Amino acid sequence: MTAPLAIRRLAAAAPDFAEHLDHLLSWEGVSDADINQRVLAIIADVRHQGDAALLEYTRRFDAVEATAMSDLILPRARLEEALTRITPEQRTALEAAAERVRRYHEKQRQDSWQYQEADGTVLGQQVTPLDRAGLYVPGGKASYPSSVLMNAIPAKVAGVKEVVMVVPTPRGEVNELVLAAAALAGVDRVFTIGGAQAVAALAYGTESVPPVDKIVGPGNIYVATAKRHVFGKVGIDMIAGPSEILVVCDGQTDPDWIAMDLFSQAEHDEDAQAILVSPDAAFLDAVAESIARLLPEMERAEIIRASLEGRGALIQVADMAQAIEVANRIAPEHLELSVAEPEQWLPSIRHAGAIFMGRYTAEALGDYCAGPNHVLPTSGTARFSSPLGVYDFQKRSSIIHCSATGASALGRVASVLARGESLTAHARSAEYRIQEEQA
Amino acid sequence: MTAPLAIRRLAAAAPDFAEHLDHLLSWEGVSDADINQRVLAIIADVRHQGDAALLEYTRRFDAVEATAMSDLILPRARLEEALTRITPEQRTALEAAAERVRRYHEKQRQDSWQYQEADGTVLGQQVTPLDRAGLYVPGGKASYPSSVLMNAIPAKVAGVKEVVMVVPTPRGEVNELVLAAAALAGVDRVFTIGGAQAVAALAYGTESVPPVDKIVGPGNIYVATAKRHVFGKVGIDMIAGPSEILVVCDGQTDPDWIAMDLFSQAEHDEDAQAILVSPDAAFLDAVAESIARLLPEMERAEIIRASLEGRGALIQVADMAQAIEVANRIAPEHLELSVAEPEQWLPSIRHAGAIFMGRYTAEALGDYCAGPNHVLPTSGTARFSSPLGVYDFQKRSSIIHCSATGASALGRVASVLARGESLTAHARSAEYRIQEEQA
Repeated sequence: MTAPLAIRRLAAAAPDFAEHLDHLLSWEGVSDADINQRVLAIIADVRHQGDAALLEYTRRFDAVEATAMSDLILPRARLEEALTRITPEQRTALEAAAERVRRYHEKQRQDSWQYQEADGTVLGQQVTPLDRAGLYVPGGKASYPSSVLMNAIPAKVAGVKEVVMVVPTPRGEVNELVLAAAALAGVDRVFTIGGAQAVAALAYGTESVPPVDKIVGPGNIYVATAKRHVFGKVGIDMIAGPSEILVVCDGQTDPDWIAMDLFSQAEHDEDAQAILVSPDAAFLDAVAESIARLLPEMERAEIIRASLEGRGALIQVADMAQAIEVANRIAPEHLELSVAEPEQWLPSIRHAGAIFMGRYTAEALGDYCAGPNHVLPTSGTARFSSPLGVYDFQKRSSIIHCSATGASALGRVASVLARGESLTAHARSAEYRIQEEQA
Repeated sequence: MTAPLAIRRLAAAAPDFAEHLDHLLSWEGVSDADINQRVLAIIADVRHQGDAALLEYTRRFDAVEATAMSDLILPRARLEEALTRITPEQRTALEAAAERVRRYHEKQRQDSWQYQEADGTVLGQQVTPLDRAGLYVPGGKASYPSSVLMNAIPAKVAGVKEVVMVVPTPRGEVNELVLAAAALAGVDRVFTIGGAQAVAALAYGTESVPPVDKIVGPGNIYVATAKRHVFGKVGIDMIAGPSEILVVCDGQTDPDWIAMDLFSQAEHDEDAQAILVSPDAAFLDAVAESIARLLPEMERAEIIRASLEGRGALIQVADMAQAIEVANRIAPEHLELSVAEPEQWLPSIRHAGAIFMGRYTAEALGDYCAGPNHVLPTSGTARFSSPLGVYDFQKRSSIIHCSATGASALGRVASVLARGESLTAHARSAEYRIQEEQA
């Protein structure tokens, strides 16, 4: 007999609501000096000893019996083979998901552009893909095939020539679904390495691992710390916090559906955050009742309980307008608008990683196969950042091509400003391009 | 009598060229434990004591006699006043530059999009501006009005409601050109604070300084270190290394022009990097001669000398194709294609912050007024990053709106994949949306 689940109830009308909400949302990643030291040592080792260090760390941390780097490489043929080892149902589902993700991301591709001015000067922007991207995939229980699709497909749609994946195989355990997803997503090479050592290898390269231009994908605290340290040498995606969902409901959706939507976030881990906002107090009661009834059926009941009790909340608001205000304050990773006419609220949503509209759009559909990316900004970072996308694997170069006349006119302006900044060489370089006025 | 300038000569045909080039390009930012400690202490103080800490640090570090935060605030009217304090010629030049920068950046604005699928499901992306941006402007000699235009205008074009600028005024010295640029760029509020304390105030907010969503703009090592530490709480732009130029010349441009273009980069600071690549050995000699002759005339001759001797190079290549290869290896911040038909090489350029095409397009024109941004990726980071732009002040939210039929089909796929990942709550949440097959 376990104790009834105690999920906190808040009311937006309470005088101390803002304070309570701030406290509920507060989360800071661990910044442990010891982990930092260990990660820096691993990076230095891999940087200076290459494959030898990689092999040694992999044997030690992953309990893998490897005697040479060739033992840590999976050829493309092995990925193809994985497609035959999963069930036909799984293969069909993976293919359907990959196809939808690819189709959506194709709309994100950005093109180069130019325009010509009256004096013949041409300005523009050239858009090109990264040469090579690295994809980190966790091993063990957090090894998700959907994550492989979501990270590798945008890179391939962007035109990245080579996508290199790393995935640790603790005690030699290989996840066939992950390899099958890699095959479908077009991953080019796979190394069965992980941890800070894999991040270091991707950033600096070794005899066997080619250096990449950007590293994406989730990982534990060692992986996240290593990514922070190699940032600048290579690009990285966001460093993700715990996953979150905010469900806004008008009280007309089946409370069991809403309870399960909250569970689907809470089951990720104890730090995950699931919050429900509604103007309907009776509905909040109904969902609390659904939660209590459904929880014991769940495989991950203990994780869900810890998450909901520790970081969950049911929040009562005056009306939908106030619900949207709360949503903008939270800037949630996932926002479910489980309401009658969600379109009318869309223009008011200023910050959210992804917006799931209407009663049928469960977040889980977006996690796997709707099409948009499931790598989303967490911990309020949707205020300034975006879902992972094709744009993360493209970069831009400005184009400036001055005509003789254009350079002359611009040279006069640049000269005045450069001299105002005491940068005389800038001024003289610009002045060389000024043509004498005609008499 | 000073010694003749000794700029290194390299030949791409030499067997050790790759090694020499790697050495020439190597640059790593200082990561000093002492600076880190001091910056972390400042951030903690400002976070916990707000205005009081800000006032105390500003008095101590900037030798400013301020007794209250109101002494550190410049109202919008003071910015307007600056426009009347600069010369009419300067005002005209600033206005011309601001107008061109605005026009170019308007082409970068991204719009929301949606599409509907056959079953009624709608997918898309909503693009919104950041609410509030913070702009750091250095004080003293590195206080550049052009930098204010380049950082603030893209934010305003993106639709950012409030742009908050911080600029230290050591010993009370105010730069009228900087304030005039702020007025023209549409900066909303200015605080005369700087250093790590200003970054901390923008990230966390104080009683007087509003917290922003993203901090952009250049600064010294304390500012850069503080930006690294607050990253995650707020967004930041790239942490810039020393400025660089790579000039590729076919040997037909006036060697004095090329020498001055190299100087215009080298005069920034001793660590700046200016490199010339040409297939024409005699031209490299001619430019070396121009450098020697022009150097003594320059105001910043000693900085230019240190930069060119320490990090500059004249590189001889076999042909233009090899020159482009070297350019792609370097991934320079600024790439000048001072050649007859630059368009033909554009598709081969894979990595560069900005490309200056033809003999008339001096980098200095782009620095001030051509239109494109002068905040560009340095130290080879053009391999994976882009010029500062409107896109840095916009963010995206995915939109998913499933029809009942769409949710049913997607629910089946999601269910299979979620169960493959042992995420049962995800599976059940999706399964609730599956409609029974009709008999």
